Amino acid sequence: MNHYPASIRKVINHLNKLPGIGLKTAERLAMHLLSAPESEVFELSRSIGELKKTIRLCSQCFALSDSGLCRICGNPSRDNTLICVVENQADMVAIEKSGAFTGVYHILHGLLSPMDNIGPDDIRIKELLSRIGQGNIREVVIATPTNVEGEATASYLSDCLVRFNITITRIASGVPMGGELKYVDQVTLKKAMEARHAI
Amino acid sequence: MNHYPASIRKVINHLNKLPGIGLKTAERLAMHLLSAPESEVFELSRSIGELKKTIRLCSQCFALSDSGLCRICGNPSRDNTLICVVENQADMVAIEKSGAFTGVYHILHGLLSPMDNIGPDDIRIKELLSRIGQGNIREVVIATPTNVEGEATASYLSDCLVRFNITITRIASGVPMGGELKYVDQVTLKKAMEARHAI
Repeated sequence: MNHYPASIRKVINHLNKLPGIGLKTAERLAMHLLSAPESEVFELSRSIGELKKTIRLCSQCFALSDSGLCRICGNPSRDNTLICVVENQADMVAIEKSGAFTGVYHILHGLLSPMDNIGPDDIRIKELLSRIGQGNIREVVIATPTNVEGEATASYLSDCLVRFNITITRIASGVPMGGELKYVDQVTLKKAMEARHAI
Repeated sequence: MNHYPASIRKVINHLNKLPGIGLKTAERLAMHLLSAPESEVFELSRSIGELKKTIRLCSQCFALSDSGLCRICGNPSRDNTLICVVENQADMVAIEKSGAFTGVYHILHGLLSPMDNIGPDDIRIKELLSRIGQGNIREVVIATPTNVEGEATASYLSDCLVRFNITITRIASGVPMGGELKYVDQVTLKKAMEARHAI
């Protein structure tokens, strides 16, 4: 690292802090930036610098947004009576990419995890309950992950939601599409077998 | 991509232009930046923005530097009579990391490549010759890569340098350390066999 001038070392150090960017990759990226067009490097720097300044949370669903209401909550063609509860923005984007959901979202920004001292007050559960309490909600799809924390959160949520007169659903578990059965773990296979349906 | 607010999309787009950073990785990095400490993100942005402004080329060896003379050329304990000629900064850093070279460098910033219309005037050969012409050089080690362009450049350089009263050497080719012979290509094995030495 001492073989680079200070300003290159600085870029390498900061790139190296990003997830999945090791020292070698950081060096390669810094070298690329040095030979890249000035405008491209400037735009990269500026877009990163402005990221935190312009991003806020949607006042309704807590998705990342650059205005008061996110594009989904602000879209009149989305079904406002159907809420999908997800752990984070990335999971929301994954569902959006599937194109299978026409309702709106609620981003918890975390999962219940007693081991990490994360309780119901640390994630956006209160906000979800008050949102449902305002009425006009028909169904809540709980799409938290299928790991321990995700299942615990789903179970806690369904207990909280039972007092409302709404349908509570959980996304299905089973064998991933295109997957060979011999490579699928036992728990998933068990779930898939239990949830078998007539064809 | 349309599932993200504009300022996140911008960061993803710019990160995606970097070598080896695909769309998925760019998305993951952008999400990381959103949750990273403000100061860290700001420092990353600033270091990238200032990279091009502060970096110039060393007036003697043309290495990237943040002052007139680079740290190696400006170091009085380096052997100024021994020059190692390399293609680029990364190759220089690789040799520095090996700790096997105590002289100074000359960065060509390219290799001869008639196919790409890169001739002797497009890389820093003139500067090398005038540097040697000033005297006080004892040996030039040609450490261009061992590919077609690197070998052609080495051959051209040795032709140019023969008129000076100096030793001209080429880094050795052979079996990489720790490598098994059965995985080494034939050309390398041939070179290694030809360059065999008494033990």
